Amino acid sequence: MILTVTLNTALDITYRVPALLPHASHRVDEVTERPGGKGVNVARVLAALGHEVTVTGFAGGATGAVLRELLDPLPVRDALVPIAGTTRRTLAIADAKTGDTTQLNEAGPTVTPTEWASFTLSYGELLADASVVALCGSLPPGIHVAAYAELIRQARAAGVPVLLDTSGDPLRRGIAARPDLVKPNADELAQLTGSRDPQRAARDARGRGARAVVASLGPEGLLATTPDGTWQARPPAAVRGNPTGAGDSAVAGLLAGLVADEPWPQRLRRAVALSAATVLAPVAGEFDAAAYEGLLSRVAVTEHPSPL
Amino acid sequence: MILTVTLNTALDITYRVPALLPHASHRVDEVTERPGGKGVNVARVLAALGHEVTVTGFAGGATGAVLRELLDPLPVRDALVPIAGTTRRTLAIADAKTGDTTQLNEAGPTVTPTEWASFTLSYGELLADASVVALCGSLPPGIHVAAYAELIRQARAAGVPVLLDTSGDPLRRGIAARPDLVKPNADELAQLTGSRDPQRAARDARGRGARAVVASLGPEGLLATTPDGTWQARPPAAVRGNPTGAGDSAVAGLLAGLVADEPWPQRLRRAVALSAATVLAPVAGEFDAAAYEGLLSRVAVTEHPSPL
Repeated sequence: MILTVTLNTALDITYRVPALLPHASHRVDEVTERPGGKGVNVARVLAALGHEVTVTGFAGGATGAVLRELLDPLPVRDALVPIAGTTRRTLAIADAKTGDTTQLNEAGPTVTPTEWASFTLSYGELLADASVVALCGSLPPGIHVAAYAELIRQARAAGVPVLLDTSGDPLRRGIAARPDLVKPNADELAQLTGSRDPQRAARDARGRGARAVVASLGPEGLLATTPDGTWQARPPAAVRGNPTGAGDSAVAGLLAGLVADEPWPQRLRRAVALSAATVLAPVAGEFDAAAYEGLLSRVAVTEHPSPL
Repeated sequence: MILTVTLNTALDITYRVPALLPHASHRVDEVTERPGGKGVNVARVLAALGHEVTVTGFAGGATGAVLRELLDPLPVRDALVPIAGTTRRTLAIADAKTGDTTQLNEAGPTVTPTEWASFTLSYGELLADASVVALCGSLPPGIHVAAYAELIRQARAAGVPVLLDTSGDPLRRGIAARPDLVKPNADELAQLTGSRDPQRAARDARGRGARAVVASLGPEGLLATTPDGTWQARPPAAVRGNPTGAGDSAVAGLLAGLVADEPWPQRLRRAVALSAATVLAPVAGEFDAAAYEGLLSRVAVTEHPSPL
């Protein structure tokens, strides 16, 4: 099975309002709730593609209970570790007038050292059955900044390939533990390396310890810098829609390609098509299955001459 | 005891953000949660004044469970009736830069006819021990518009004085059932009567069935139109602060004065002082006890010659 780790899971709430006016009072027309956090989103996409997938991380309090209730009917195994703190909420306020979204993210619960120890124990057991593991998103308060580095070392020791999708110091510290793949976006890559040139920055990130780097470049698609070569994959045309979850769908595509041991161009095709099909879907974070199938053959992949 | 009814209770959430920017992403610096809904707020103020008070209404789902957990340590008896639906949230986004607040209110759960019947049964039992009852706030979906009229008739039959604090059609229908006191604000009174002249509108509301009308006029204080005369009570000076909960504190003051059988000028003094002390308190909906004591003797009450 594919294992995804979301240390800072979230109950994703969407409020639909006619128009968001600061300092006014609004009646919320429609409330939707979804289990969230990057690794949970990745797992949902993988499950929809027919993969056996397990989610782990932390869940606690009333929002944690709702999150688990919402996970229950999905074809995803819930291996979340209970904590005393309360799982965070994220709130997206969708403005019916402009179509834009205002996002408010709670920081998340403080995880105790005992809870972290109990997580690493459970994670070690889950690795025994995992074909690949993805470590996704921000760290909740209380978790040390080298936590992903620790989890990467555990995965490497178990012989399980590991993908890291985070930012800031957790990314910097994680890369040094030599993950198989990191998937930063252009901003995260620039923050890590100091360079806004994606090719140069990706080479720098590989030098820091990442075996392969797949940078998501928004409408420009994905740039993969790997031991086998460098490729850029672009969607066939500009895709209009809601980009929420597009990055998580790209991660799902990369994982699916990795477990099938596909060559890089095919993995990138899958990731770009899933990502574009997510932007096109009417519900944020879902993907349009028909669009995905149609896009798969239309993603253009070009190989870059390696400067190394 | 004093009984307060909140059919559409709420979990009141406050998010503190540096500045609310529509269509941007925000990290929430601070999250606070309080049990809410008008009658719950009124009960909290009464309990702080030393009154024995019971809250009833509906609570359900994960947010209802949190609401009840937060009520538990307060000196308020929880007689909320469980429902299958989920208690609504209200969200106040407090902007640290401007000090202003953006409010988002969920509609609330749909209450079934069986749940309503079970509530009226429990309400009837609670009335046996009540010295006064306050019916507060909006109606949740599924509750018929004459619900407050029904509860007023039940209270009158039990010989319990009843205060109604709502708006729109529930106020219009409720007034016709002859409550002892209604407490509309200027807008609610104008909507009910078509007149923006508070004295004229209050006489009209009395003509529709309310035995007494106390209109809250914001910085102008309270205007009471009663069988014993007409009075206006004003705070000693313009009060700066957060007006959230000021109306609920005025209701608490009116109830406290009513159970003590105080003359109207004293009831109004209490209500205006509590209301102003709520605006002055740093936490929305709390009141500043020292300010309340200080303000009590400084509220100016003038009697209006009755035009009737």
